[in-house]
Amino acid sequence: MDHFEFMSPTKFILQKDADKLCGEEIKKISDSCLFVHYGDGFTYKSGLHDRIIESLESAGLEYYELPGVEPNPKVSLVRKGIELCKEKNIGCVLAVGGGSVIDTAKAVAIGAKYDGDVWDFYSKKAIPTESLPVGTVMTLPATGSEGSNGSVLKNAQTGESADVMADFIRPAFTLMNPDLTLTIPKRQTVFGIVDMFSHVMERYFSSSVNVNLTDYMCEGVMKSIIVNARALMKDLNDYNARAELMWTSIVAHNGLLATGRNQDWATHTMGAQLSAQYNAVHGSTLSVLFPCWAEYVYKENIPRFVQFANRVFGVDVDFYDQEKTALEGIKRLREFFESMDAPTSLEKIGVENDEKFRKMAEDACRFGNIGGLKTLNADDVEAIYKMAQ
Amino acid sequence: MDHFEFMSPTKFILQKDADKLCGEEIKKISDSCLFVHYGDGFTYKSGLHDRIIESLESAGLEYYELPGVEPNPKVSLVRKGIELCKEKNIGCVLAVGGGSVIDTAKAVAIGAKYDGDVWDFYSKKAIPTESLPVGTVMTLPATGSEGSNGSVLKNAQTGESADVMADFIRPAFTLMNPDLTLTIPKRQTVFGIVDMFSHVMERYFSSSVNVNLTDYMCEGVMKSIIVNARALMKDLNDYNARAELMWTSIVAHNGLLATGRNQDWATHTMGAQLSAQYNAVHGSTLSVLFPCWAEYVYKENIPRFVQFANRVFGVDVDFYDQEKTALEGIKRLREFFESMDAPTSLEKIGVENDEKFRKMAEDACRFGNIGGLKTLNADDVEAIYKMAQ
Repeated sequence: MDHFEFMSPTKFILQKDADKLCGEEIKKISDSCLFVHYGDGFTYKSGLHDRIIESLESAGLEYYELPGVEPNPKVSLVRKGIELCKEKNIGCVLAVGGGSVIDTAKAVAIGAKYDGDVWDFYSKKAIPTESLPVGTVMTLPATGSEGSNGSVLKNAQTGESADVMADFIRPAFTLMNPDLTLTIPKRQTVFGIVDMFSHVMERYFSSSVNVNLTDYMCEGVMKSIIVNARALMKDLNDYNARAELMWTSIVAHNGLLATGRNQDWATHTMGAQLSAQYNAVHGSTLSVLFPCWAEYVYKENIPRFVQFANRVFGVDVDFYDQEKTALEGIKRLREFFESMDAPTSLEKIGVENDEKFRKMAEDACRFGNIGGLKTLNADDVEAIYKMAQ
Repeated sequence: MDHFEFMSPTKFILQKDADKLCGEEIKKISDSCLFVHYGDGFTYKSGLHDRIIESLESAGLEYYELPGVEPNPKVSLVRKGIELCKEKNIGCVLAVGGGSVIDTAKAVAIGAKYDGDVWDFYSKKAIPTESLPVGTVMTLPATGSEGSNGSVLKNAQTGESADVMADFIRPAFTLMNPDLTLTIPKRQTVFGIVDMFSHVMERYFSSSVNVNLTDYMCEGVMKSIIVNARALMKDLNDYNARAELMWTSIVAHNGLLATGRNQDWATHTMGAQLSAQYNAVHGSTLSVLFPCWAEYVYKENIPRFVQFANRVFGVDVDFYDQEKTALEGIKRLREFFESMDAPTSLEKIGVENDEKFRKMAEDACRFGNIGGLKTLNADDVEAIYKMAQ
């Protein structure tokens, strides 16, 4: 077991109509807020926007709005939010939406406390030291940003995506109303499931030893995702499966499952290049790449892949040919993704030739080799992209 | 899945020499602290006391000491600590020890912010609304108070034990140095293991349905406890097993495993009467009573006990006689306790006749019937005490 530091101070509330509590929760920390959201059809037509405004008004809060968050959120909108916070002396940022909205809100919250440009934090020119409090109303179980210490932004000028990680940007509160997730279409539901399952795998595929507690918890969380995913594939309106996955997406990514162990994250890094070059949806990059990554690296740690096969997918261990068991586990992973119609080849996400593979591989390794279970260089990464064709 | 609210804001640090960080952690929140500890041989002879003082002095903190905490901690010592905090205007309470020390520190922390007598909170005459921050240096993995929202005290005048629960008494930080636990004698080690295992069972034996995530996590935590307990029974100096159990005791009891489900807690309530009447060690009351409680109630929810047998103890399910499987699981639980020489009958903890059973049963139910899985009245409780003879 490795040493660790871990904190997750967010207050989590899961209940029907939880979104309506936002006014009273903000009131405990501030008299004003910036309400950040997509400004899309769902936000308005579902009645969510009205309910949030009503809650803010009932609590007597001064509020301003920042609509227009897009997937792969842009620093340009963040700058607008920061300006508003400074001009109006706003005390709190409320994110209503999925990971993009929450990452935007976190960026606004650190930028509002800084005299320079917020991108300085993402480009590592400066380190944030404080933040406005952020609250979230969750609408899309996937990224886990509702409980995490991270924010990822895209700089449209440079095309670069970058992150900030700090415990003080973890949300002060997160409100989960499972009803808000019942209407998420199948495609987005599936990519959310792939994302949260991958967040656990990035931590599970570790080279740390004597980590029974987190191994068993990771395995339990993965088994729970599989059970609830199967329930949703039968009925997208299954309230209980929706509720469990809402909470699971946070548990998968708040850092608890990584306590005392190193982590991998090569697949996320490789996937980010696919998003940058082909605008591929995050979840789709993971369903394509994770099984290929596993096939490329499993020999580095066969017992771990045997354990994965046996404990997560219930594969009986062939003790005379454990490699076969390891490979069977990876096959089951791919089948799990395919059972939900998640893509498992680059071709299926519209990447039809290998002309950008070398550049993507080099970009993936621009800060150094990647991966905790097995260290990968640009040649390795290129090979994995080729396997995924 | 039930609705829930959950928060666990504590910063947890596990590393060698973690205790030495106490000065710098306190410095982030206050310039002064009250250092609460047992004042026993271990605290002084192990060098722990010196290391804490050195850390507080290096950080330039003003500090005062409150030694003399006893098991089943007394409100009288708490009152002394409160007086000191008020007189010296102390800004933080540092607990160095096990659950009794931490519960004492939490009580001092709420009492220091209150004009009346601190027992008012425990007797429910008043509700605490604020607290000094509490930090902990953990020495005994068992109660999980290092991450929990509870404090239990004994009023020696009335003989009554009572608790306070509030999220704001969760520690600000908890420092875990596994080396401090290597010298815990077998008996105390075992009672700690029984305690943390029981904290999971109290949450696992629930009547809530559609709780896959927390079921799997509870099962994982229990399996991890069994694996690490077996390692320690072979070698009490196993650093990794000690480290895992240190963190496990907190995960078992910070409330995460209860999110979205109701809980039982009848066994803890029944055990508290044994402690009150016979001064029985907390862990021993649980190893005696839990298997008997299970045998008394399992018919209420056979699938849950079958699942426990199968998933936690690896019992193959007899699908034609599931009750047999349920009972086999309970037998394995008793055998697990016995494998560590934990007592599994009242006789073994010196309770030789049933003269106090009726009174204890009535006292256990004085606030109403108990138990979340099956509601128990005083007759049920008396029957369970009799089964445990």
